[in-house]
Amino acid sequence: MKIRIISTLLIALSSAMALAQTTKSPNGNVELTFSVDDGKPTYQLTYKGKMVVKPSHLGLELAKDKHASKGGGETDLVDGFVVESTKSSSFDETWKPVWGETATIRNQYNELAVNLSQPSTSRHIVIRFRVYDDGIGFRYEFPQQKELNYFLIKEERTEFAMAGDHTAWWLPGDYDTQEQETQETKLSEIRSRMKEAVNWGNSSVAVFSETGVQTSLQMKSDDGLYINIHEAACIDYATMHLELVDAQTKHLSEQLGGGSNAYTPNPTPSAYPLPAPLTFVSHLTPDATGLKGAMQTPCQSPWRTVMVSDDARDMLSSNLILNLNEPCKIEDTSWIHPVKYCGVWWEMIVGKSSWNYTDQFPSIKLDQIDWSKVRPNGRHAANNEKVKRYIDFAANNGLDEVLVEGWNVGWEDWANMWKRDVFDFVTPYPDFDIKMLNEYAHERGVKLLMHHETSSSTQNYERHMEKAYNLMNHYGYDAVKSGYVGDIIPRGDHHYSQSMNNHYLYCIQEAAKHHIMVNAHEAVRPTGLCRTYPNLVGNESARGTEYEAFGGSNPDHTVILPFTRLQGGPMDYTPGILETQLNTWSDNPNYVRTTLVGQLALYVTMYSPLQMAADLPENYERFMDAFQFIKDVAVDWDDSKYLEAEPADYITVARKAKGTDNWFVGGKCDENGHVCNLKLDFLDKGRKYECTIYADGKDAHFKDNPKIYTITKKTVKKGDVLKLREAPGGGFAISLMAR
Amino acid sequence: MKIRIISTLLIALSSAMALAQTTKSPNGNVELTFSVDDGKPTYQLTYKGKMVVKPSHLGLELAKDKHASKGGGETDLVDGFVVESTKSSSFDETWKPVWGETATIRNQYNELAVNLSQPSTSRHIVIRFRVYDDGIGFRYEFPQQKELNYFLIKEERTEFAMAGDHTAWWLPGDYDTQEQETQETKLSEIRSRMKEAVNWGNSSVAVFSETGVQTSLQMKSDDGLYINIHEAACIDYATMHLELVDAQTKHLSEQLGGGSNAYTPNPTPSAYPLPAPLTFVSHLTPDATGLKGAMQTPCQSPWRTVMVSDDARDMLSSNLILNLNEPCKIEDTSWIHPVKYCGVWWEMIVGKSSWNYTDQFPSIKLDQIDWSKVRPNGRHAANNEKVKRYIDFAANNGLDEVLVEGWNVGWEDWANMWKRDVFDFVTPYPDFDIKMLNEYAHERGVKLLMHHETSSSTQNYERHMEKAYNLMNHYGYDAVKSGYVGDIIPRGDHHYSQSMNNHYLYCIQEAAKHHIMVNAHEAVRPTGLCRTYPNLVGNESARGTEYEAFGGSNPDHTVILPFTRLQGGPMDYTPGILETQLNTWSDNPNYVRTTLVGQLALYVTMYSPLQMAADLPENYERFMDAFQFIKDVAVDWDDSKYLEAEPADYITVARKAKGTDNWFVGGKCDENGHVCNLKLDFLDKGRKYECTIYADGKDAHFKDNPKIYTITKKTVKKGDVLKLREAPGGGFAISLMAR
Repeated sequence: MKIRIISTLLIALSSAMALAQTTKSPNGNVELTFSVDDGKPTYQLTYKGKMVVKPSHLGLELAKDKHASKGGGETDLVDGFVVESTKSSSFDETWKPVWGETATIRNQYNELAVNLSQPSTSRHIVIRFRVYDDGIGFRYEFPQQKELNYFLIKEERTEFAMAGDHTAWWLPGDYDTQEQETQETKLSEIRSRMKEAVNWGNSSVAVFSETGVQTSLQMKSDDGLYINIHEAACIDYATMHLELVDAQTKHLSEQLGGGSNAYTPNPTPSAYPLPAPLTFVSHLTPDATGLKGAMQTPCQSPWRTVMVSDDARDMLSSNLILNLNEPCKIEDTSWIHPVKYCGVWWEMIVGKSSWNYTDQFPSIKLDQIDWSKVRPNGRHAANNEKVKRYIDFAANNGLDEVLVEGWNVGWEDWANMWKRDVFDFVTPYPDFDIKMLNEYAHERGVKLLMHHETSSSTQNYERHMEKAYNLMNHYGYDAVKSGYVGDIIPRGDHHYSQSMNNHYLYCIQEAAKHHIMVNAHEAVRPTGLCRTYPNLVGNESARGTEYEAFGGSNPDHTVILPFTRLQGGPMDYTPGILETQLNTWSDNPNYVRTTLVGQLALYVTMYSPLQMAADLPENYERFMDAFQFIKDVAVDWDDSKYLEAEPADYITVARKAKGTDNWFVGGKCDENGHVCNLKLDFLDKGRKYECTIYADGKDAHFKDNPKIYTITKKTVKKGDVLKLREAPGGGFAISLMAR
Repeated sequence: MKIRIISTLLIALSSAMALAQTTKSPNGNVELTFSVDDGKPTYQLTYKGKMVVKPSHLGLELAKDKHASKGGGETDLVDGFVVESTKSSSFDETWKPVWGETATIRNQYNELAVNLSQPSTSRHIVIRFRVYDDGIGFRYEFPQQKELNYFLIKEERTEFAMAGDHTAWWLPGDYDTQEQETQETKLSEIRSRMKEAVNWGNSSVAVFSETGVQTSLQMKSDDGLYINIHEAACIDYATMHLELVDAQTKHLSEQLGGGSNAYTPNPTPSAYPLPAPLTFVSHLTPDATGLKGAMQTPCQSPWRTVMVSDDARDMLSSNLILNLNEPCKIEDTSWIHPVKYCGVWWEMIVGKSSWNYTDQFPSIKLDQIDWSKVRPNGRHAANNEKVKRYIDFAANNGLDEVLVEGWNVGWEDWANMWKRDVFDFVTPYPDFDIKMLNEYAHERGVKLLMHHETSSSTQNYERHMEKAYNLMNHYGYDAVKSGYVGDIIPRGDHHYSQSMNNHYLYCIQEAAKHHIMVNAHEAVRPTGLCRTYPNLVGNESARGTEYEAFGGSNPDHTVILPFTRLQGGPMDYTPGILETQLNTWSDNPNYVRTTLVGQLALYVTMYSPLQMAADLPENYERFMDAFQFIKDVAVDWDDSKYLEAEPADYITVARKAKGTDNWFVGGKCDENGHVCNLKLDFLDKGRKYECTIYADGKDAHFKDNPKIYTITKKTVKKGDVLKLREAPGGGFAISLMAR
């Protein structure tokens, strides 16, 4: 009897608490309020008193019978909740990344953990919020318990109710690619833009909704708030997309008709009422059965993140996503290092040479070819002579490594065939002497950078992985670029599903055992896992420079990416195409949509510990004065100061090179050009710096006059102001060497 | 011009040929006729002039867009064919199996290879027939060619038009299990029996049609022909089921409503007209997307086999399926050997003890448990003391190996959870000292037999396989029993799909590199691959003895299996349960539906190079006189003579032990009993044999009086006749030791 009374009291208390459980960020600007609204967990978010996320529900729909379309039976984790207890705490710690934009990172937040129970099922879950000065992270936690041990996710239903019809920079939601061109529209215009967005650049693969978009999603409100939704620490969980409820939405997960996503089971409409228009609802990537996840308690979702500020620069300097990831799990990180590299790659992308060695067969089977008897096509790029030239170039110019793609057998018919045994990752083509070339490189202080294109045949890759990594150890490779082009094997799976996210992490963990750094292309968009596994030195997971050879990317592309794709981790964007007009040396009619100097700026504005000098040595040799900046620029930093930023318009950032007093400044702008009044406030007082300014020439233009530039040297000091004109599609790059 | 005329002539010639291209078996009894019927490849089969397969079409429907339900677009390989050329040949070779029912096997057939072209697509395929004295095999071959390099199979449409309403012994077609009870009905009664068949024993998982059945399918015609349909050499291809067209069929692949196959995409009805009633049509196992196969030329289908005779014994002695497989691909087979074993298994099956070590947790994660601190449940069978007792028992009784299930961590929550990281295959429970126990066994001349339950998490198994096999090598294991209980991971895949068939073969091939023999349970039904990979010493792939503890199997079960399941290869049936009444030593209320002597007979009637003495040592110790037969019986043979046979009624077989002059005879019957007049014609003339007869006692009965038996010793010679009464559910067993 006594116990019953106490419980009732607790519930009464907790209901009261639920009415207004508010947590502020350390500086008080960000305020998170949690409540339970008619049994539904609900949160709202304000910034300096302005509404950022209106009251929004949290929950998950579960499937019982192993097929999402037959969901039901299992009680959802959506409503019927009461607050059992809450716990508030504060945290403040400064940690040192193995590599990064700054030498140290402060992780300071106030936390609210809400213990919720669902009395009808005797289950309980925790929703944990961390409130930072630049936004929030929250996640679902599922403790181990009798009534919740294993469960299948039909859909996560996390809402983000926007407070206005913001401008958004978005990609069509897609289960398999994020290489589309970014769209800029009002939220209310997403639906009408979707068809065009899907077709643009022809790179959508498996879109799911007429209002589905990817994260990280950058927005700007009419009253000047910058808001960004993404996720952190996506481990053993499907990648989250967002589906916007707008005035025309009839139910969630409306299927986009037909098209290339034909082999995805139709999602089931949610049984729950629609939230208000301008609300985003989470939409996870399904597996081949349409399910969104198979979970075992204790477990948790990734962190759902909302970054917010009235200063766009805070979007770029934020460490919220890294901070929400677990500390480094690799004990000895001495073998992990930044990498500046060149490689045998761009000439294949442009179409001048080939990855494959022969054109003799309509298709090949690896175990049935005697490569010594095969007729070469004469266009194979990864040959001894050419690789030695690249090694020489790297050695002569201080580059650390040389990537060689197409070195291994199987490129004859590698893509889009659902071919399982596509590569073995250990057998070089006959014209690639792996022993000789590694020895040649090592003698010159250079390493080769391994390439593992998996063709998305993950089963095949995992079968060969140990031998492939052993081969790397044997010959002295310490980094691998991996690729996931084409449809996933096992068939029906998607690039961003729970199982594929598990696969990517498995590769990173196995590579770490071999002291190998990973740069994964076409893999899932990163969510800050590089804090925990700093051997993940790069990802593609966005539209890279290669698209300049496939038809081009918008000039504002690289002043959007730092706000979106780069939130989760560095990108191997492969900048440095100084010969922007491809028809000067190939039959490719396309041109790069930046100026030459704009390419230099990217080494500073697009932060990455792995940077490629992507153009051909012979092109660099025609611009050696400009190439000097690529030689000089650092790839690891003690400090970074974002000086100006506006999404899709311009970014200016100054960075202090690791372990030195030298600074590098990069400015990049969109197709409209930009004028930057660069105040050198960040320099050390009383010190002089040799300043080299790489600037767009007068009348430079990304299309009509891209390769005109000036290089100016002067001595500067703290407080000096440099006026820099950035051409349409251009930018500037500055090195400041401390005397 | 000249070339055109010649082609026309050839086509005219080939059309003429197509009218009647007949191939007879070496003895002339079997006759195969091939023709092209309105562009459709067509075959028929007769035996001694009687129709076995009426004219039946051959072909494949293809999918173009990677999803079966949206098939079309790609031209099918069904019609529009003309015969380009045909080639007839003969073959006669005798080969020696590494282990088997006979020391040598004759492979004699006449072959017809038909080169077909489909002028509308410029494609060509080959259909190859091999005609044996006891049936035929045929397959589709897809040469490498410009217009057919990669293709996706929507469905294979191979027809088998039956000439009458035969009696059939069938299992419900199922993508994931073949552990159901066999049904005996007329073909026309399959549909009405299906619901009951699916529910019987509750072991159906993913059935697909109300007339879908599995192979090998044994039939008997009203005029006394025994007909068996199966397949041989199923490699990198989905397993074939058969779907019967009957009077009520509206279209092929009608989905069985709801049920446990809910996560299988609905098959698409065929666009082609239905064949005549009483025609079986092939139905392949789909992958998670509903597709039936992803092919790259040059490639071929498995052999489709039709065995036929007017003598039921020929069904059992046939080597047609082995002969259709490729010769042994393992160069050194000296490490492959027959195995008689006991093991820690039956007491867990019966429910007396447990695989798992603890009941402390609702679920476990392997990387989060400190096993030294875990509270044991006190029922864990695989403990040092017990395993030593089994080792002692094996050593004292001439058994080669001791299986130990439940030795490794993970059994706490291993099944049906879609749990990926379920076992690591290398970490023993704290009470299983792997080093000590192997040393203890080796000192006594016994080996331990490894157990790898995968829980169907194939990705997890493949990730750990190399380490698991290395562990086996390290401790001196040379055989592994693997298991595939539960739903496949990757989710949505099926036990009998192309990718899973590839997985099973991958395991066998990798095991061979480690000199490890494989005995795979719940894997695909075998198709004779043990000829090519003789380290595949056993499979379960049917309803094994374990079902006697789950409610029982029909007494005729073991006189059906040799006609059906055993056609493709040996079964680890785990016979030898001499204490047939389980409640005498456990709380399990079930009983084994044979007599004690019937269990002895199985060692001879159910051929396998791997035979378990499945009962507990303490049970054997109570029947040591009967157990003597299990000690004596061979597991590898120089000769086998099937003396009597009738499906589901009785089987009597005599076998000559490998490398000796000793014979063993087994007789097994159904629930009606049987009298066998055993003529010892097979013995060597002029030689005397010590004969020990293990016979059912008077009034023995599988249910009411199972353990009454007589053991009689006498001296016999060639020509003697023994009259043996087999009780209902009983049998007999005889050893004949040459003097």
